[in-house]
Amino acid sequence: MSTEASQPVAAPAAAAAQNAKQGKKSKKQESQFLLKTPKGTKDWSDKDMVLREVIFSTLGNLFKKHGGVTIDTPVFELREILTGKYGEDSKLIYNLEDQGGELTSLRYDLTVPFARFVACNSISAIKRYHIAKVYRRDQPAMTKGRMREFYQCDFDMAGSYDVMVPDSEILAILCEGLTSLGINDFKVKLNHRKILDGIFKACGVQDEDVRKISSAVDKLDKSPWEAVKKEMTVEKGQSEEVADKIGEFVKVSGSIRETLEFLSSSELLKTNESAQKGIEEMAVLADYAEAFGIADFLSFDLSLARGLDYYTGLIYEAVTAASAPPKNAEELKAKAKKQETAEVEDASEYVGVGSIAAGGRYDNLVGMFSNGKSIPCVGISFGVERIFSIIKARAAKEWESLSASQTDVYVMAFGGGPDWTGFLPQRMAVAKQLWEAGISSEYVYKAKANPRKQFDAAQKSGAKLAVILGKEEYPDGKLRVKTLGQGDDSNEGELVDVKDIVSIVKEKLSSYNGGDADLLTRLVKNL
Amino acid sequence: MSTEASQPVAAPAAAAAQNAKQGKKSKKQESQFLLKTPKGTKDWSDKDMVLREVIFSTLGNLFKKHGGVTIDTPVFELREILTGKYGEDSKLIYNLEDQGGELTSLRYDLTVPFARFVACNSISAIKRYHIAKVYRRDQPAMTKGRMREFYQCDFDMAGSYDVMVPDSEILAILCEGLTSLGINDFKVKLNHRKILDGIFKACGVQDEDVRKISSAVDKLDKSPWEAVKKEMTVEKGQSEEVADKIGEFVKVSGSIRETLEFLSSSELLKTNESAQKGIEEMAVLADYAEAFGIADFLSFDLSLARGLDYYTGLIYEAVTAASAPPKNAEELKAKAKKQETAEVEDASEYVGVGSIAAGGRYDNLVGMFSNGKSIPCVGISFGVERIFSIIKARAAKEWESLSASQTDVYVMAFGGGPDWTGFLPQRMAVAKQLWEAGISSEYVYKAKANPRKQFDAAQKSGAKLAVILGKEEYPDGKLRVKTLGQGDDSNEGELVDVKDIVSIVKEKLSSYNGGDADLLTRLVKNL
Repeated sequence: MSTEASQPVAAPAAAAAQNAKQGKKSKKQESQFLLKTPKGTKDWSDKDMVLREVIFSTLGNLFKKHGGVTIDTPVFELREILTGKYGEDSKLIYNLEDQGGELTSLRYDLTVPFARFVACNSISAIKRYHIAKVYRRDQPAMTKGRMREFYQCDFDMAGSYDVMVPDSEILAILCEGLTSLGINDFKVKLNHRKILDGIFKACGVQDEDVRKISSAVDKLDKSPWEAVKKEMTVEKGQSEEVADKIGEFVKVSGSIRETLEFLSSSELLKTNESAQKGIEEMAVLADYAEAFGIADFLSFDLSLARGLDYYTGLIYEAVTAASAPPKNAEELKAKAKKQETAEVEDASEYVGVGSIAAGGRYDNLVGMFSNGKSIPCVGISFGVERIFSIIKARAAKEWESLSASQTDVYVMAFGGGPDWTGFLPQRMAVAKQLWEAGISSEYVYKAKANPRKQFDAAQKSGAKLAVILGKEEYPDGKLRVKTLGQGDDSNEGELVDVKDIVSIVKEKLSSYNGGDADLLTRLVKNL
Repeated sequence: MSTEASQPVAAPAAAAAQNAKQGKKSKKQESQFLLKTPKGTKDWSDKDMVLREVIFSTLGNLFKKHGGVTIDTPVFELREILTGKYGEDSKLIYNLEDQGGELTSLRYDLTVPFARFVACNSISAIKRYHIAKVYRRDQPAMTKGRMREFYQCDFDMAGSYDVMVPDSEILAILCEGLTSLGINDFKVKLNHRKILDGIFKACGVQDEDVRKISSAVDKLDKSPWEAVKKEMTVEKGQSEEVADKIGEFVKVSGSIRETLEFLSSSELLKTNESAQKGIEEMAVLADYAEAFGIADFLSFDLSLARGLDYYTGLIYEAVTAASAPPKNAEELKAKAKKQETAEVEDASEYVGVGSIAAGGRYDNLVGMFSNGKSIPCVGISFGVERIFSIIKARAAKEWESLSASQTDVYVMAFGGGPDWTGFLPQRMAVAKQLWEAGISSEYVYKAKANPRKQFDAAQKSGAKLAVILGKEEYPDGKLRVKTLGQGDDSNEGELVDVKDIVSIVKEKLSSYNGGDADLLTRLVKNL
């Protein structure tokens, strides 16, 4: 079963008539509708869900290990809550129709709802995680995992603490999260909004232009310096000189201590209070990163800017080789255009897809909801859809043989002749006993079925054992227990007393590891 | 922390200005907006989430035990997919705004998306569960758990099987699900659409009136017979005689075999093919219910009709004493009016709130999406929000002492004097070691903190052990491990080597049961 290619099916007459009435469709759609999920969304098949649940539980357990609790907020918020939080991206927010009552919109991320939650409930300190779907009316790029409906997996700490203490633990969680999912080839790019803003001002950018220059710099991971410089000068009105000064800073990256050394030696920044404050904080972070043993993953990269308005301090973004933009983006783009499949809705999907985890400090967002009573926050969001794609690609070899169901026992009945009833109620009663003992069991949903069909169904279910009710044996209080998947069909299994069946099955199952979820967990960790 | 009463907070100036611009608000809202979740939705606090996750994992494991797999579908569907599936309730569907592109609506249940999924992916057989939110623009009744955004927890079997075989297992799952959540005082009301439709026709109802008479009968759990009869005659045009004949049937309930005896002796039904087919199937079900040992939970109740259009065979609904309508509904209604709190938005919430689990057979729904290629289905939906309310009320005594976090170890540092650094990087390094060993650990996010504050924080976190770095001891390679919560603060704990810390902590923790999630699981099961 694959859910990747939805099959178009003609609509039933009633729905087709409905379509025609709406009169907004293309010619083709007037007479039938495509049976599919909305653009930028998709179904998750049973096997995909096994991997998704392994990822979610791995990260959930990680967050709990760090004292995290989970909460949940509605999928839509009052529209005013989301207003003015996302800068240029606000146009991507999904609105619900005004059907009378309040105006609402689907959440765009989990951060703004979290800040609203903290303010609503007058919370002064919380470490919370939230794994849930968010919605963006973006141009979808399915094959790269850029969807209109996608999961985010966020951990945030709210509360007033000493400088860089929660921030550094968030970075430790980021590194631990990725390695625990088998992703070891990543770099975490760091920067600090106070330093970045200080640089812009020291280079001559006016206060009111800082955010838009920051958003130009944010494009440096996808565009060359020349393009970004052009945006600053031609589109955003800075002089060549200012842009060139900025260029000298944003090309710098290295370990925290290396970049700090560069910054500390800068004459231009010496008198900039904001930059000096950021430099001080980054020096503290360097110590803590070493205490956590994560310094080697970190790169203090002055070109990292992050798009969102609400960051106020440390910002970061993890990238892997798999998520980095390919060198020959143009070539891939051309190739994608040739494919012309329904999936490739946007050729730009082959250009850099950004980070697999990102976040930062946002000290003023809660205050926007609580009359200015600020609660400092810092958080990380794992891009679980991209992580999913990376792990699935790596597990491609094992994927085919995975079974999504976790059935341990298949209950069968063998018999024949004109008086053969098929023992269906008896199979049900045996299965019931196994279920009560916590053992997953199935049987064929037919009054009578031949042995071949029952073995086929058992194999499909991935069951490890067969429990067999024989026409002559069962009335004598006996059952057979046979180990499956050994290519030894002639082996008739072991004859046991009906009353012992649960304990014998339990003992036999104890030699197996867990189901395919465990298998996948092991696969992920060993990769 | 409670999320039940959202605190209204004045809006920041920017958002207020935005409000004013929209010009659609009441006077009060023009100058500020209420900081709250949208009507009929709510936040879930950390402690509520612990219970919710226990419920979800209990039911998820149950479904897996029966060979179930899980899938996921988008929260919104193309609007045409939902059109014409929900009868009178279609007006409760949430639409997304037309922002260009496809017209979409939030899902109203998980059943129609499931049928769409089966058709889309050309699946011929699947046992799937899906735990996810659905959306209905209904009048909310928060205290009774009737929300506009709420979780459903569905298990459905699609595929062509022998009569009543999957249906009876679904009933076994229903009973097992409720008892595994500590709910034992329930009844499962059963009926069969073929019998019900046969009764209507045999009593003289015309084919085209059958569904609307069925929907009148469906109100018998909330309204007296006289009111339902009036609806049939005055509103829906049936004669007194027809209504009285129907009345003779729908007052009958009892065990499957008792009701079957009544039906079999009915002269009126003898020649009704539909009723006879249903009677035959119910006789088969009686055998299977006995095989599963669930017959005592079942009541074959001819007044059960179920509102949805798509059912074609067996239908069922589980009710508990807690979910039954109170005798003095009118009195409670008056009382609710007096309270006039924001929460009590609809006094009718005190009238019967319906079932805690319900479902039925729907053989034609998939066919509506696949050019008539039918895949027979049968399923159950657990009303997990109502179940949540029942369990939380029962666990009220233990609720206060529950901790939502699952922290095992609190890492502290004791010292003092002018040269005391607070050992923060050292605490981080110790915590890191514990995290790597899978042990949940926290520490105070301050460079220096006095012992009292650290013990207070440890208590709040629910930690079982303290690991203490002493100013003199730690440089000598020694740590203290102290058991918490024994009211024995003078006990200084055990002095151990730094290199042994992980194994010693693991050993000490092994004597504890799991966290509060486990505690709650035990509470639920023992109730």
